[in-house]
Amino acid sequence: MAPHVLVIGGGFAGLEVAKGLRRSEVDVTIVDRENHHLFQPLLYQVATAGLAPSDIAEPIRAILSRQHNLEVRLAEVKAIDPKHRRVRVQCMDGDEEWMQYDKLVVAAGASHSYFGHPEWEGFAPGLKTLGDALEMRRRVLSAFERAEWTESETERRALTTFVIVGGGPTGVELAGAIAEIALRTLRKDFRKIDTTRARVVLVEATDKILAAFHPHLQKQAIDQLEDLNVQVRLNTPVTKIDEDGVVLADGERIAARTVLWAAGVAASPLARQLGVPLDRTGRVMVERDLSVPGNPDVFVVGDLAAVTEPDGKLVPGVAPAAQQMGRFAAKQIRADLAGKTRNEFRYVDKGSLATIGRTKAVFESGPIRMSGFLAWLLWVVVHIWSLISLRNRLLVMVRWAWAWFGYQQSVRLIWHPSRAIAGPPASGTQAATRQGAGLAARP
Amino acid sequence: MAPHVLVIGGGFAGLEVAKGLRRSEVDVTIVDRENHHLFQPLLYQVATAGLAPSDIAEPIRAILSRQHNLEVRLAEVKAIDPKHRRVRVQCMDGDEEWMQYDKLVVAAGASHSYFGHPEWEGFAPGLKTLGDALEMRRRVLSAFERAEWTESETERRALTTFVIVGGGPTGVELAGAIAEIALRTLRKDFRKIDTTRARVVLVEATDKILAAFHPHLQKQAIDQLEDLNVQVRLNTPVTKIDEDGVVLADGERIAARTVLWAAGVAASPLARQLGVPLDRTGRVMVERDLSVPGNPDVFVVGDLAAVTEPDGKLVPGVAPAAQQMGRFAAKQIRADLAGKTRNEFRYVDKGSLATIGRTKAVFESGPIRMSGFLAWLLWVVVHIWSLISLRNRLLVMVRWAWAWFGYQQSVRLIWHPSRAIAGPPASGTQAATRQGAGLAARP
Repeated sequence: MAPHVLVIGGGFAGLEVAKGLRRSEVDVTIVDRENHHLFQPLLYQVATAGLAPSDIAEPIRAILSRQHNLEVRLAEVKAIDPKHRRVRVQCMDGDEEWMQYDKLVVAAGASHSYFGHPEWEGFAPGLKTLGDALEMRRRVLSAFERAEWTESETERRALTTFVIVGGGPTGVELAGAIAEIALRTLRKDFRKIDTTRARVVLVEATDKILAAFHPHLQKQAIDQLEDLNVQVRLNTPVTKIDEDGVVLADGERIAARTVLWAAGVAASPLARQLGVPLDRTGRVMVERDLSVPGNPDVFVVGDLAAVTEPDGKLVPGVAPAAQQMGRFAAKQIRADLAGKTRNEFRYVDKGSLATIGRTKAVFESGPIRMSGFLAWLLWVVVHIWSLISLRNRLLVMVRWAWAWFGYQQSVRLIWHPSRAIAGPPASGTQAATRQGAGLAARP
Repeated sequence: MAPHVLVIGGGFAGLEVAKGLRRSEVDVTIVDRENHHLFQPLLYQVATAGLAPSDIAEPIRAILSRQHNLEVRLAEVKAIDPKHRRVRVQCMDGDEEWMQYDKLVVAAGASHSYFGHPEWEGFAPGLKTLGDALEMRRRVLSAFERAEWTESETERRALTTFVIVGGGPTGVELAGAIAEIALRTLRKDFRKIDTTRARVVLVEATDKILAAFHPHLQKQAIDQLEDLNVQVRLNTPVTKIDEDGVVLADGERIAARTVLWAAGVAASPLARQLGVPLDRTGRVMVERDLSVPGNPDVFVVGDLAAVTEPDGKLVPGVAPAAQQMGRFAAKQIRADLAGKTRNEFRYVDKGSLATIGRTKAVFESGPIRMSGFLAWLLWVVVHIWSLISLRNRLLVMVRWAWAWFGYQQSVRLIWHPSRAIAGPPASGTQAATRQGAGLAARP
């Protein structure tokens, strides 16, 4: 029997591991809790009603359907048992079972961290999954709906104030997109409120946004955000988040009914199952061949791996890095099979891109720095090109072209996910009318 | 102050009421529990992974943003008080309040009826909302995922058996689409199961499917379904639905993990608030001007109205009829304002269309009858043309062209709606990983 390579996670890293083994004499299984691969760099556009979930998600089975040594399993990994070379999975019907492996690649990614304040999560959702994005979209769009009908001016102000915590690429992109919605998309839709007077605040604890970029571009990004009426607050840690908004380190309270979290990242708790040292954010400190210390048959790749470059820099948690790690791990497995020695991983940095609203962006690659419309065009080309299927490239192009020329966001559906749940028989509430149903209350 | 026209429901009928009053000296408010209008005739395609929710839904505000005498309110109607000309609504924040009206148009639509068996709902979801459609999609796609990994041949058979109850247009369209998915779309995605051997059974209590069509076309539709391996069971009432499948009137049990309901329709419970006689399915038996008996200021339109034509025929519950009623009600309100007398409603039947799989359909309009590929082309043109926005027309065309030439369904995402819920703070489970989360168990 061919050796069994088990891959946990169908993200950017996991997919590349599988693809890198397509011509090898191995059986590959990808285990994921979702049936789809998610193009996370555009997730903020789902959150801000620019794209539909299916535009940036593709079934893992469909992506890899031609790879005949590959199987996909929709299941949740509960435990890793490296001693017995097995992984415990919970299947869709709730049963648990062990799956054996010869080589294991853990590509389980990362989630948000609330820096020791888990109670903030309900008030300030983060952005990692399609569910997160739809929840953000629901909160943003619902806030305007509620503002339109409230009697209280104070409440209206809180409903049209949006605080984004964290000045990394996600925070900057969310702030820019929400400002655009308020300034343009929704302007003509409301009668009683003036959506262009909505307040968008980007709060950042350190003294800079977009830390990965050159200070010159950081400055440009702030200018571009301010052109969209976004207030950028640097050196401003958040000390409290509750249902009324946020409290800043200087004691100021911003009354806001919508707070979005784009600040912290925490590695998947699966890392703890490997029994090796983790870094401060819970990532596995891997060897130079991306294997786990003391266990060359287990690799950790993607956002879950803490990889230090020879120059001391940490490899960033971005899609290209995850893909490079995935390809590298597959290559090492091929080397093992061929009896060759392994290599050391080297990250090739092709540059960083972040977009601000519908015409601006910043780009940096080595000595090259760009900002404004040209950087934005580059951003569009790179992101459309990177989408996994040609069909999604087409669909996203149609949506973007439409939004660009018409100032209309495509996907302004407010979701009431509670209604989609198949509860036990006879919930009664489902016997509702076409007129609609289910008002999901804000916590 | 201008008279206030309150419209309950933003479906096909409600939208036309609003549009018909755009040049009148009135204030119009549409109240709906959803923020979007839904193009229900294509809802079965969302359920069968052919379209995304946003392809067939459009924010009501956006559709009517240029109509300045119109306001939209996202709220749920709890009670109607015709004596005091007011409607009680529950707003998004949970508070309830009264809204006054001068003219009321109730266009609250219909939902499924389980013929006195509400306990069937959890086992056999119906199809009226986007949530319903996503739940159907989840069940169908998950069944194949589970079948791939089960050890038991009996269980595999039950997982790849799909029973659709009800031989109306929705049942026929669902059965055809699921058969197509199994025969073509999913064929290459699985390794252990042969999806082309899936069993699709369409169960109908009476002696015909598509009752609105000529017997010749009914026969054609059955032939077309059987070409797709769908088993059509006529004269076969269902006596029981449970987690193991369905029991038929003759005692036969079909073991099936997926049962879909396309049989009964029940009017919105709001009809009971009007204090007038209802028909057997709970619809309001309106006057010839579509007003409520004894209350000329309240109209009932769309699926909620039971309208008998002079020849004794009942106006069918289809989108064109709802639109005609909406336009008619607006015209009567305009007549009232101008001091003119009202007219009697006449339904203009432009014909019926139903589609079967990806190349077949049946069409009937008066003496004209058509089936097969030409009828299907007509179906495509009519449905793309009827979509509410040009952007959605474009997107749906891209998706359909893609699916047609590539045999790939666009939107095969399995949803875990429970994950999208904004629970109270610190649910903990959201601190999951990119690898995925939340396996929603079948009831």
